[in-house]
Amino acid sequence: MVNVAILGFGVVGSGVAEVLATNGPHIDSKVDDLIRLKYILDVRDFPDSPFGDKVIHDFSIIENDPEVNIVVETIGGAKVALDFTRRVLKAGKSVVTSNKELVAEHGCELLQLAQEHGVSYLFEASVGGGIPIIRPLNQCLAANEIEEISGILNGTTNYILTRMIRTGLSFEAALKEAQQNGYAEQDPTADIEGHDACRKICILASLAFGRHVYPRQVPTEGITGVTLADVAYADSCGKKIKLLGRAIHREDGKVCAFVAPHLVDGEDPLSGVEDVFNAISVRGNAIGDVMFYGRGAGKLPTASAVVADVIDAARHKDAKKRMFWEDGGEDVAVPPTDLESAWYVRTEGRLEYVKAAFPDCPLLPRAGAPVNEFAFLTPPMTRAQLDSKLTTMAPCSVFRVLD
Amino acid sequence: MVNVAILGFGVVGSGVAEVLATNGPHIDSKVDDLIRLKYILDVRDFPDSPFGDKVIHDFSIIENDPEVNIVVETIGGAKVALDFTRRVLKAGKSVVTSNKELVAEHGCELLQLAQEHGVSYLFEASVGGGIPIIRPLNQCLAANEIEEISGILNGTTNYILTRMIRTGLSFEAALKEAQQNGYAEQDPTADIEGHDACRKICILASLAFGRHVYPRQVPTEGITGVTLADVAYADSCGKKIKLLGRAIHREDGKVCAFVAPHLVDGEDPLSGVEDVFNAISVRGNAIGDVMFYGRGAGKLPTASAVVADVIDAARHKDAKKRMFWEDGGEDVAVPPTDLESAWYVRTEGRLEYVKAAFPDCPLLPRAGAPVNEFAFLTPPMTRAQLDSKLTTMAPCSVFRVLD
Repeated sequence: MVNVAILGFGVVGSGVAEVLATNGPHIDSKVDDLIRLKYILDVRDFPDSPFGDKVIHDFSIIENDPEVNIVVETIGGAKVALDFTRRVLKAGKSVVTSNKELVAEHGCELLQLAQEHGVSYLFEASVGGGIPIIRPLNQCLAANEIEEISGILNGTTNYILTRMIRTGLSFEAALKEAQQNGYAEQDPTADIEGHDACRKICILASLAFGRHVYPRQVPTEGITGVTLADVAYADSCGKKIKLLGRAIHREDGKVCAFVAPHLVDGEDPLSGVEDVFNAISVRGNAIGDVMFYGRGAGKLPTASAVVADVIDAARHKDAKKRMFWEDGGEDVAVPPTDLESAWYVRTEGRLEYVKAAFPDCPLLPRAGAPVNEFAFLTPPMTRAQLDSKLTTMAPCSVFRVLD
Repeated sequence: MVNVAILGFGVVGSGVAEVLATNGPHIDSKVDDLIRLKYILDVRDFPDSPFGDKVIHDFSIIENDPEVNIVVETIGGAKVALDFTRRVLKAGKSVVTSNKELVAEHGCELLQLAQEHGVSYLFEASVGGGIPIIRPLNQCLAANEIEEISGILNGTTNYILTRMIRTGLSFEAALKEAQQNGYAEQDPTADIEGHDACRKICILASLAFGRHVYPRQVPTEGITGVTLADVAYADSCGKKIKLLGRAIHREDGKVCAFVAPHLVDGEDPLSGVEDVFNAISVRGNAIGDVMFYGRGAGKLPTASAVVADVIDAARHKDAKKRMFWEDGGEDVAVPPTDLESAWYVRTEGRLEYVKAAFPDCPLLPRAGAPVNEFAFLTPPMTRAQLDSKLTTMAPCSVFRVLD
């Protein structure tokens, strides 16, 4: 018998209870044991829930119950969730979470704590919702030196960009629609400013490159600066605008990580990832490019990733180190200052200045563009090199073009 | 120290030696032990290879060396490879393979043998080359009841179809080009007739649904019947022709498995999978659709999947059952007789007969089509229902449309 407790009975937590119940016999056969949901911790009561009789309000009951083997943390945030996770691990219980903020900020400490107490800290659901990515990165691609990870990591912004591209909605209108459909929070800041994608690329980078990359080290630009004019210019050269989280392993051992809108070529599989779907592309030195695609959020997809981790923890009750990264530090992550790429520029100004600074860059067409608006793609260069050429102009949008 | 022997020093076998050497320190750190290549078994000598001094010709040396923990079987086929695999497992050594024929025909027996002797039989590289699919299906999606798997499982045929679609080459010319580029064998039968895809869908179906599905139980149609006319008609309705292996879990518990060309909608991520790339789409009852994409063949991608399994086997020297399926039998797999779908039909005949049999199906356009050629998409129906309507025509091509 394996006893599970869920901390936080919100969308994902209740989804975990539902998946455990719905697929119970299938899951038990996978574990070769019986998995039982013993407690649900929440401040609220849920008298109408079929799991209402499991609800308790005192965390220490879980902490002190030796029968509880695995704790699912779906509280979110990095405050009470951090305290509870530490205490659970110290009590010798494995923890499974979907909490990307906690893993991105404290993953290294919590993995170490898990190792010290001979248990697991698993977080497949923290990136890409239900898409298998953490375990494949850690196991299936283990024979590779990972060179680069690029991902569409946030479903809300991808939905907004898809609606702008396909139906010509403005950013504001697309955001409102996303809120009405439940794809965006009433306060959408974490999504549209790129913070959510930033946390996820930190987790992927830490796992792939072996040292903790913290969100504060990762320059992050969201999609609030993307306009319908940019969408149209991108379309005119066969590209789509996507918000990417990227982590590149440099030859000097440092990790260049950042989040920003990019122009992605129509031939690149990432360009076909639409609506709330996520996709993560990984380049290894032996395998080349592989991509993982699926629903990046949602109650049951995310819950199914949590439950897969529960199954894994239950199979390896006497677990040894299987996931691990070293502490970070100020010398691990660097901004993309030296990273050369082609750039998309939309600017207002005088044509002769554009022609003088970018003599070999054909102008992109857009129906109805103001006469003093110009857009073009540059040859590969660093941001500093680009900025030195833009001094005679008033650039409105500047985005990297993905190689 | 973990000692590895490679059986068969062909493309994949030599790639395994290369990946072990190139990424050695990285791999050792993943295992927390030293992995050493001790023997290479082949009938030939390789005096010019950097690994030439490892080559031996007597299998029993490997079989009887207690220092050898893991054996990589990259011989291929189901004859000597079967004999050697059985003997290695019985000798208490784990086996890692890329041999899809052997797994598809004898996987159940070999998994059972591995379990009896407390070792692992791992075959991530047998499907999708370097794409992680076997382990994600077994572990990450473990919380799901798998409902359907559909995959572009053969890079050679996908390359041929891509060249037909994008450059208008005939099937024969595209095949010749694939052979010149090393993407197709001189005898391309196993690829173009669908046998290779058939073996792979058997492995995926057996793993996902828990009972062995044998290649002889899976109706298999290749791409030799696909013409440029079909490609053009598909394009006229926004679809692409792809060779798919499919396995569908029916409500009665049986598995409907088959391989055939399909029309795939341009909005479906599978339609964007081009050239020698493979992709496998999996539908689970909690996760919805996820897709895995990457190079389905090639020396280093396949070798990297083999080495990932070597790492896994080395980490779990005292492994217990982690992958398993029951024996099959005649009652497990069924042909897609009852499977309703829309159909693409290209036929020669008289317009009034087409209109009479399919009154609500608009004809698809094609420039330069003969006056007595008609193509259209039908509403969902079974193959028998379709055939009953085609009696007054001479159908040239009949392909399913993927939902």
